[in-house]
Amino acid sequence: MNSSDILSLCKRRGFIWPAYEIYGGIAGLYDYGPLGTAMKNNIVNAWRKAYVLGEGFVEIDSDTIGPEAVFKASGHVDQFADKLVTCTKCKTPWRADHLLKDIVPNSGVLSLREIDEEISRHKVVCPDCGGELSRAEDFNLMFRTTIGPGSAGRTGFLRPETAQGIFVNFTSLCRYNRERLPFGVIQVGRGYRNEISPRQGVIRLREFNMMEAELFVDPKDKTWPRYDAVKNDMLSLVPNDPGDKEIEISLVEAVRRKIIANETLAYFLWFTQRFLVSVGVDPERLRFRQHLKNEMAHYAADCWDAEALLSFGWTEIVGVADRGCWDLSRHIEYSKADLTAFKRYDVPTEVEKEVIKPRYGALGPLFKSKASAVGKALESSDVASAGPDRIEVTVEGEKITVAPNCYEITKTKVKVTGEKVVPHVIEPSHGLDRILYTCLEHAYAEKEDKEGKYVVLRLTSVSAPIKVGVFPLMAKEELVKIATPIDAQLRSKGIDTSYDDSGSIGRRYARMDEVGTPYCITVDYTSVEEGTVTLRDRDTTEQVRIGTDEILAKLTGLLAHEIEFADLKGH
Amino acid sequence: MNSSDILSLCKRRGFIWPAYEIYGGIAGLYDYGPLGTAMKNNIVNAWRKAYVLGEGFVEIDSDTIGPEAVFKASGHVDQFADKLVTCTKCKTPWRADHLLKDIVPNSGVLSLREIDEEISRHKVVCPDCGGELSRAEDFNLMFRTTIGPGSAGRTGFLRPETAQGIFVNFTSLCRYNRERLPFGVIQVGRGYRNEISPRQGVIRLREFNMMEAELFVDPKDKTWPRYDAVKNDMLSLVPNDPGDKEIEISLVEAVRRKIIANETLAYFLWFTQRFLVSVGVDPERLRFRQHLKNEMAHYAADCWDAEALLSFGWTEIVGVADRGCWDLSRHIEYSKADLTAFKRYDVPTEVEKEVIKPRYGALGPLFKSKASAVGKALESSDVASAGPDRIEVTVEGEKITVAPNCYEITKTKVKVTGEKVVPHVIEPSHGLDRILYTCLEHAYAEKEDKEGKYVVLRLTSVSAPIKVGVFPLMAKEELVKIATPIDAQLRSKGIDTSYDDSGSIGRRYARMDEVGTPYCITVDYTSVEEGTVTLRDRDTTEQVRIGTDEILAKLTGLLAHEIEFADLKGH
Repeated sequence: MNSSDILSLCKRRGFIWPAYEIYGGIAGLYDYGPLGTAMKNNIVNAWRKAYVLGEGFVEIDSDTIGPEAVFKASGHVDQFADKLVTCTKCKTPWRADHLLKDIVPNSGVLSLREIDEEISRHKVVCPDCGGELSRAEDFNLMFRTTIGPGSAGRTGFLRPETAQGIFVNFTSLCRYNRERLPFGVIQVGRGYRNEISPRQGVIRLREFNMMEAELFVDPKDKTWPRYDAVKNDMLSLVPNDPGDKEIEISLVEAVRRKIIANETLAYFLWFTQRFLVSVGVDPERLRFRQHLKNEMAHYAADCWDAEALLSFGWTEIVGVADRGCWDLSRHIEYSKADLTAFKRYDVPTEVEKEVIKPRYGALGPLFKSKASAVGKALESSDVASAGPDRIEVTVEGEKITVAPNCYEITKTKVKVTGEKVVPHVIEPSHGLDRILYTCLEHAYAEKEDKEGKYVVLRLTSVSAPIKVGVFPLMAKEELVKIATPIDAQLRSKGIDTSYDDSGSIGRRYARMDEVGTPYCITVDYTSVEEGTVTLRDRDTTEQVRIGTDEILAKLTGLLAHEIEFADLKGH
Repeated sequence: MNSSDILSLCKRRGFIWPAYEIYGGIAGLYDYGPLGTAMKNNIVNAWRKAYVLGEGFVEIDSDTIGPEAVFKASGHVDQFADKLVTCTKCKTPWRADHLLKDIVPNSGVLSLREIDEEISRHKVVCPDCGGELSRAEDFNLMFRTTIGPGSAGRTGFLRPETAQGIFVNFTSLCRYNRERLPFGVIQVGRGYRNEISPRQGVIRLREFNMMEAELFVDPKDKTWPRYDAVKNDMLSLVPNDPGDKEIEISLVEAVRRKIIANETLAYFLWFTQRFLVSVGVDPERLRFRQHLKNEMAHYAADCWDAEALLSFGWTEIVGVADRGCWDLSRHIEYSKADLTAFKRYDVPTEVEKEVIKPRYGALGPLFKSKASAVGKALESSDVASAGPDRIEVTVEGEKITVAPNCYEITKTKVKVTGEKVVPHVIEPSHGLDRILYTCLEHAYAEKEDKEGKYVVLRLTSVSAPIKVGVFPLMAKEELVKIATPIDAQLRSKGIDTSYDDSGSIGRRYARMDEVGTPYCITVDYTSVEEGTVTLRDRDTTEQVRIGTDEILAKLTGLLAHEIEFADLKGH
């Protein structure tokens, strides 16, 4: 099995289609067909449920178009770029690091000048036509557009990640969560990356789907309430030190040995692993690789990629990072907004503080009827504003200079109920398309019977786009009138079915196996006589008879893993 | 109540926020906060369920960026424009038809020259600064971008509607549906419209959310299987002839009197009405207005807008159109792809057809060993290709001219199993943001009690973002240890809750009323003693006591409208 087997199945059966094929297609753009869309919705809903209902995160949905200021602050305007070289003859654009990959070590970190030198030294030419290559230049990967008409238009970009939409709404989100830390926010939606030359099918897309979670935490408290319950569970880790070796280690041990930076990060690695396995990623082909020190973004305190083993090799499908205060600090700097949370102390503390105390005896004769107002203005002035020989205060719009004989600076104790903090951010960021593709590859199995080779997708019941096939043995009225209400009943309860009355039963089972449908129900002549149907399990191909009145309950139980197919065989 | 009451509630409680406020905001861009996102997801899921599980449509998810060719074919490159005038002094851009709205009748249909004349005749100046206005120009409303780098980049646009993504995938969709008509496809996603000067809050957005359904039907058969079951139900219609009067009429009567063009269109007006009411549009403030003849797109056979009465007046929230074969025909013309469906006849018919019959007696001597191949080539040639004195055929790559003595043209009967047709499209296209906003306005009620005025949102249980408030009377351990598992149990079953232990109970009820939460559960000291809780109904504010072990079943029943709150009062 390789990626072209998967993509050909995807295309044939309606999971994923190259976009705009009737107009020649565009590299890096794919559409989801009916089965792919249903599967994607299933994965999104499972993720949403885990974060929102399970962990108490809230979900927002922000715009995909943003103004330049946002991406200036986020660093994308200046740094979200690949190095581009173009063939001077056939005009094909190339990513310089890809061309130099097998020639120069660490081709990804070369400067423009170094790239030009290496291309010249190694006589690298256009792989398509052998033409000479242009000098390297930075190519920003954001799609650019203009918001509004003509000269009033302003530059906008399609977001490269959904996260910025969460950061810019921090104040409203903090208020929504009643100013308490920690609080978490998720977002599902499109991201855009104007790749120079996308390849690798749905792994590298120009328009993709993300599921991002941003957890805002107290910088001094990176513990997590549910950590203790899972801390002895195991993770497959590839730490960046020493030397890239995969280890199986418990959360608590990884935190104790400082392999993972803190408990919250460890918890969300675990949480990510649990989620991925629940939708169908094979735990044997899943690991967490820590970013190398030179690979880690300069602001990240720690960063781990969930990697799945695919036919492309180990591939990042989720990134889990402790981004520190980077994002909020940058937006504070660029927008001047106060993106802090107020951290209330359990017990208010008293601190000693210098304050200005007016001397009314001296103020009275000098300022007369204004003396009281000047005194109040002095009291509320910051000590730091006091010059060596005077303080300036403003009273009713008038600036007044007050000499030192009119006040004294003394120490007093004040009650402090809390402090403003710029929260740190723990971010699990999911590549939805890659997760979906991983589920397909990991579910893919080829089987052989007397009619030849065929494919079974062993998708989990969570992600399978169709849950149940419903078949009348033949399209005869007495069977159809039993099968149709079964189909309608399942659908009315939100269970996706595929009703099929054509072709041999074996052929219909095979069609369902190929798209990962876990169960099939067949209505036959015994159904007419005895009120039972056969229920077939995809993975064992075993069948049991159950009563038509039990179908909904049994299937609901099977799909939720509350009962197992083997349990039904006693009947 | 007016729209600013709603928008202020939306902002304060986290339904909808103006986007990028910390950077000054951008007109026409809004973000969904936690409650808005949950509510939007609820509406989408109800819609998806109605179309996919209820009517057998399939869902796809196509790209938001498309190449120019697609929008050339769809007509958007040439026709999706507003007339723009700009203030020569302050540079503010204006929509010409808006400036002339109260001055010239039908300002929306004026040509550029007519606009210039009217502006000059009526001395219209910039409403902001009184400056002179520029000449009018067409401003295309698609956001433009470039796909790929540098000279290899090609022009792309952000889609103005999701529909084109369905049309360009027609061939794959038709195959997925096993080539049978009718079949339906839905899509949910972003649409973009680079408005000149957006106002009216979320009613006119630059980036918006759509839910579109495209039903492909046999042009000669616009009936619908479930039409008969609902044909006596009533619709509020404003037909375009005569004179814009609202009538209450049954589907069957509207079709019989040719007010609605066909049964399928009538069914989907009914279906749209049922859906809108289910999510919370007030049926008393909902009507279907037929497009005026001069307002209807030239390709539309019939078009109706579902209009809701809002504080802005009657506002389109859904458009239901019979688009004929326009879309597919245009894409056939521009892409040269065969976007037809094969319509299989119930019974194959025989038609008389002219065919070419070779005369082997004459061919043999002439063509010797090739005679048989030439004869076969003649048989498969089209009669239309026969010249008056010869036919040219190609045999093994060689062109051969055959004289009339070697063949005869005779009539024969051939079996025809079906024909290729370009399907017609019935399209219900939903403005999701407008529907959500309508639900909020129609649910909005102000009430007064001894503590003053407060707001109740009477959202339906389908769209309410939070379904249940869970409150321990006080944050005391003996109450919390009962309330917490109730909260967890509801969440584990997919029911959104809000757990709140702060403030008076009255205040907590009011907070939930204001965001439309239909039910609240309070755990008090009787709960500790008797194992019961109070269940409060938002709309009546009545309370009943139910057992803690009944909570899940009762709430599930209430939320699905399988039981009513009044039924519980007998307890």
